[in-house]
Amino acid sequence: MTGRLVIIGTGPGNPEQITPEASAAIATGEQFFGYGPYLDRLTLRPDQHRIASDNREEIDRARAALDAASKGASVCVVSGGDPGVFAMAAAICEAVETGPETWRRLEIKVLPGVTAMLAAAARAGAPLGHDFCALSLSDNLKPWELIERRLRAVAEAGLVIALYNPISKARPWQLATGFKILREVLPVTTPVIFGRAIGRPDEHFVVVPLGEAHQQKADMATCVIIGSTQTRIIDRPGMDPLVYSPRSAEP
Amino acid sequence: MTGRLVIIGTGPGNPEQITPEASAAIATGEQFFGYGPYLDRLTLRPDQHRIASDNREEIDRARAALDAASKGASVCVVSGGDPGVFAMAAAICEAVETGPETWRRLEIKVLPGVTAMLAAAARAGAPLGHDFCALSLSDNLKPWELIERRLRAVAEAGLVIALYNPISKARPWQLATGFKILREVLPVTTPVIFGRAIGRPDEHFVVVPLGEAHQQKADMATCVIIGSTQTRIIDRPGMDPLVYSPRSAEP
Repeated sequence: MTGRLVIIGTGPGNPEQITPEASAAIATGEQFFGYGPYLDRLTLRPDQHRIASDNREEIDRARAALDAASKGASVCVVSGGDPGVFAMAAAICEAVETGPETWRRLEIKVLPGVTAMLAAAARAGAPLGHDFCALSLSDNLKPWELIERRLRAVAEAGLVIALYNPISKARPWQLATGFKILREVLPVTTPVIFGRAIGRPDEHFVVVPLGEAHQQKADMATCVIIGSTQTRIIDRPGMDPLVYSPRSAEP
Repeated sequence: MTGRLVIIGTGPGNPEQITPEASAAIATGEQFFGYGPYLDRLTLRPDQHRIASDNREEIDRARAALDAASKGASVCVVSGGDPGVFAMAAAICEAVETGPETWRRLEIKVLPGVTAMLAAAARAGAPLGHDFCALSLSDNLKPWELIERRLRAVAEAGLVIALYNPISKARPWQLATGFKILREVLPVTTPVIFGRAIGRPDEHFVVVPLGEAHQQKADMATCVIIGSTQTRIIDRPGMDPLVYSPRSAEP
């Protein structure tokens, strides 16, 4: 028996932003592993099996999914956004590397998706129109000192910054400290975008200057984008402003 | 008459990776502005009008599209990948900022898509599974010295690097120089992924160590991903290796 494992992303949450390729993989999957709220976005048939787990249990979920595939099942591992950006594809790879030899013989496929920063950026205009980076603000799996060093380095290098995992109940102070560090490098007028659940009914979207960026504006589902010194705001009558980073850059 | 302007991305090229949201925008569009090869990916009806231009004429194309929308047309501006990543959304914003006041009253919508680095990363495994950045290697719109400084800064900060616009006929030496700079910072064993036209019939995909990364492996349609010191390769019998960046990082 040879199973297969496909790792998909549901996009930012709007069902119109999930790729046809991912939808087809969902249609042919037998067992679905993922964080409960992501699995909730799927409409599964009675013959399709749902195995939900908590969002702190990624490596155990990865091993369970690989085990099911190695027993012959058609397995679908479900992430939000893109499965390769701070999500399940890396956890599956880690589990393969440290797991039994048979897992290396499995057919494993990663299907790309629309990651959260792209949806938040599209909602704003084009803040990622020039050089940018994506950093996870979670110090669960890396030391906080490293995060501080990276924030400083990328801000000084002039990159726009997309922050994933900005805040959670277990990590209440990190985002405020991150803003403090960025205010040491960037002007207080730098645009900051808080994009939460973009494209979903509970969407929340706001643009504020860095000097007024407070962590209370973010939750676990928020992608925070901090502009560079080049990022600009175009005011528009009766509409949200356009925020964008020009294609050209000064030294 | 009030026109509207929607900016879409076709994804990396595989039609199964274009979002239903973008497909719906194509179906309702009247005038389509874009680089010829991207417009070629669309199947337009006889009543839909195609206005192709060269890929070095982005700002003129943006102005023409805004002008058409301001005259009442339903305009669709077409990028490859995601329209917000080194693509048309920023050019449209620039044109709005410097254009007539009426353009600020237009309904402008950016629809996110699957950008090239996500497709190349998915093909490889999960090289963008940890902190990463996207840099354009084109010095058409920024000084080369700035690109060199950014390459050094992000490599030293431990970010995985996705390079867009790595090479062209007019920019023949930049990628080789970029690799040389990265070899001064990163081990020669660092995995480098060349992902060209991923998901299309003319796909080309290869993983080599940084010490053997040559610019001849890239062309305009290639996304080059350079790992960090943490990025790992899992060899698999009879299959491409999995390349991934673990979720945890050492200082």
